[in-house]
Amino acid sequence: MTKGTTLIRGGWVIPMTNRAVYDGGAVLMKDGVIGAVFQKGDELPVADEVVDATGCVVMPGLVNTHCHSPMSLFRGLADDMPLDSWLNDHIFPAEAAHINPTTVRAGALLSCVEMLLSGTTTVCDGYFYEDEVAEAVMEVGMRAVLGHGVIDFPAPGVPDPSENVAIAEAFVERWKNRWSLITPSIFCHTPHTCSEKTIARAKEACRRLGVLFQIHIAETEDDVQRMKEDRGITPYQLLDDLQVLDESTLLIHNVWMNDGDMALMARHGTTASHNPGSNTKLASGVCPASALMDQGIHVGLGTDGAASNNNLDLFNEMQTTAKLHKAYSLDPAAMDAWTVLEMATIEGAKAIGLGGQIGSLLPGKRGDITIVDMNKPHLTPVYNPASHLVYATTGADVRDVFVDGKLVVKEGNLLSLDVQAVMDEVSRIAKKIE
Amino acid sequence: MTKGTTLIRGGWVIPMTNRAVYDGGAVLMKDGVIGAVFQKGDELPVADEVVDATGCVVMPGLVNTHCHSPMSLFRGLADDMPLDSWLNDHIFPAEAAHINPTTVRAGALLSCVEMLLSGTTTVCDGYFYEDEVAEAVMEVGMRAVLGHGVIDFPAPGVPDPSENVAIAEAFVERWKNRWSLITPSIFCHTPHTCSEKTIARAKEACRRLGVLFQIHIAETEDDVQRMKEDRGITPYQLLDDLQVLDESTLLIHNVWMNDGDMALMARHGTTASHNPGSNTKLASGVCPASALMDQGIHVGLGTDGAASNNNLDLFNEMQTTAKLHKAYSLDPAAMDAWTVLEMATIEGAKAIGLGGQIGSLLPGKRGDITIVDMNKPHLTPVYNPASHLVYATTGADVRDVFVDGKLVVKEGNLLSLDVQAVMDEVSRIAKKIE
Ligand SMILES: [Zn+2]
Ligand SMILES: [Zn+2]
Repeated sequence: MTKGTTLIRGGWVIPMTNRAVYDGGAVLMKDGVIGAVFQKGDELPVADEVVDATGCVVMPGLVNTHCHSPMSLFRGLADDMPLDSWLNDHIFPAEAAHINPTTVRAGALLSCVEMLLSGTTTVCDGYFYEDEVAEAVMEVGMRAVLGHGVIDFPAPGVPDPSENVAIAEAFVERWKNRWSLITPSIFCHTPHTCSEKTIARAKEACRRLGVLFQIHIAETEDDVQRMKEDRGITPYQLLDDLQVLDESTLLIHNVWMNDGDMALMARHGTTASHNPGSNTKLASGVCPASALMDQGIHVGLGTDGAASNNNLDLFNEMQTTAKLHKAYSLDPAAMDAWTVLEMATIEGAKAIGLGGQIGSLLPGKRGDITIVDMNKPHLTPVYNPASHLVYATTGADVRDVFVDGKLVVKEGNLLSLDVQAVMDEVSRIAKKIE
Repeated sequence: MTKGTTLIRGGWVIPMTNRAVYDGGAVLMKDGVIGAVFQKGDELPVADEVVDATGCVVMPGLVNTHCHSPMSLFRGLADDMPLDSWLNDHIFPAEAAHINPTTVRAGALLSCVEMLLSGTTTVCDGYFYEDEVAEAVMEVGMRAVLGHGVIDFPAPGVPDPSENVAIAEAFVERWKNRWSLITPSIFCHTPHTCSEKTIARAKEACRRLGVLFQIHIAETEDDVQRMKEDRGITPYQLLDDLQVLDESTLLIHNVWMNDGDMALMARHGTTASHNPGSNTKLASGVCPASALMDQGIHVGLGTDGAASNNNLDLFNEMQTTAKLHKAYSLDPAAMDAWTVLEMATIEGAKAIGLGGQIGSLLPGKRGDITIVDMNKPHLTPVYNPASHLVYATTGADVRDVFVDGKLVVKEGNLLSLDVQAVMDEVSRIAKKIE
């Protein structure tokens, strides 16, 4: 646990507890927890450490609600092709040949490094050999919800599919109280690649263990069409029939859905992860995220894996979200900057079950803070820092990052490990893949 | 003129003369001109300067085919609102109150700095007080096609609209042979804000002077609808009637067009600037860029001004282009990385009339080169550098930039002027605007 007090002062404090910007404000952290947010003119306390954030935005660390962190191993390996061919002809074979505990650890480390350097302090992940992802997350020092993968085929580390739920359960048991920054979870691949029985058993385990259940859903029109033809229902109706929809279920993608599907999610308090970078690159379509939010559904942003994005920069994802929905609705007021900022922070935190701990600079929440340097040509002048965060900032503008009160990125450099060594290791692995 | 020879060696050379990547290649420049491109194993010449580009991409400098460079003054001043209200309630009043030669110079300098630092070596610009833009371009040392604005209302520096074409002509005369990196041009605002007579006279002047004619067209559905109601024709038919469509006319936006409009452009060899960042942010719609290219029309990418984007990073624009068109067509093979790279380089160069001078590393062309550092976590590993340039790179990854053979950005720092002073000056001006 981080001991002592840190005062971040100067700059524009954007607590995301409301839609306010405190110009010349300050934030106090005490023992890893947000202690207070100050406005200009407030008397500031003495602190053990003082960080000068003049010319910077001080905001909650960003929350990435969907990633497959080891897949940075395959970044740029296959592009500009249909999802089916991308998955079946390139990604699945590469996974079968090259995924093992060592490569998972290396890929996850690289993704965590990329995310922290670009201001993301929490990731909700799903993959196999998830113990290795957890070790990487601990090593780099970020917060994570980690879902062990479940699929009804032989998978990395799960050669016998009949054991898939048991293996995922064991993962949750192992990590349930191991490290305060890691929250384990179970991640079913899709309603097409997992049987009804598997999905029901996995959700049952999640309920018993009190953890988040994650599943990809309605990513492509074909996914939904096939289920309608095979069973006469939508994937959402299937999950409802299996009693999977509740407040601790995160549905990922949600591109092809109808009003009835939305109503089901709203009624059960089910949350959503919106992945516009991946959905546009794979031409899956556009999730009706505004309509979901209008129904009171918590919608966070996700990058998906780096094999289908191909970066994990949530500032990039925010810009894509704001612009894509405007173009799609032909409404320039759609998806305004504040809405998108909420998706990348507090709404994302709620979507993955951490709304009480992170996502805003509310006193009592954990000290996850991102400091963005606005003293850059492309961020000059500053009329409205919230606008810049969505429309002009990239991850490269992040200066400092705190996780749980601890400084992990300082002036653009990661303090917890040797970034070049992490890159070199992944490059070495990639030489065998290509 | 840049004297002597420079050899850039190592890295991935992407000449954009074809769709090849020369891993471990090299480029020789002599007296500011591309001398030769080498592949791995070729014997390399001795040179006055040698630049080590190991781990980097070496490519033609990017070409921004549409910008209003002084408008960085208004970056983030007004967002998330309809184009009409954005323009009439915010931008036009701000321009009327705050645009003068001093502010134009300051804003243009800031935009040029932003563009060079993010790898753009050529910009096609259009605004008022364009002499000041030209001075800024010379000071910072980039290449530009500069269009003096023409509109049938009182405008900055043009209080009497009856003199608008004459003033633009005089601008072209002044800059026609003044500095080799600047090519003057005339920029009519739109077919709605310029009369038929004004457009015809401006194009006539361009033809006589041998320079590019630029005009915004079909940006919003309303623009086209009104013209159809008023005159029974599309804006493209109007320009055709006025004999404006030829190979030296650049049409900007082209969002709302039909097959007949495309056929007109194709028949006359008229070129296009595609501005997806601005068009999505203002919810104007999506230009049918692939269909235009299928007809053989040269389509370049443009950022538009920083008041409507809100950044001038062409790497960002490339990513938006590749992803937006995939989502819109539901075809993941649409707008592949190579096509988008061509739009940002050689096709953009052709679109603004500089295809013979820049846009590819063809021997004899000018030495405009951008070097991108791929040794970054978010660009690791490298299977396909072309994919990374479109899907994962940002302007912050640009290491070095040469314009006309001269090094203007070295290791991310601009050599030609004090960037902090440029930012401070714009921030000072902005304090009066907000
Ligand atoms: Zn996914
Ligand atoms: Zn424009």
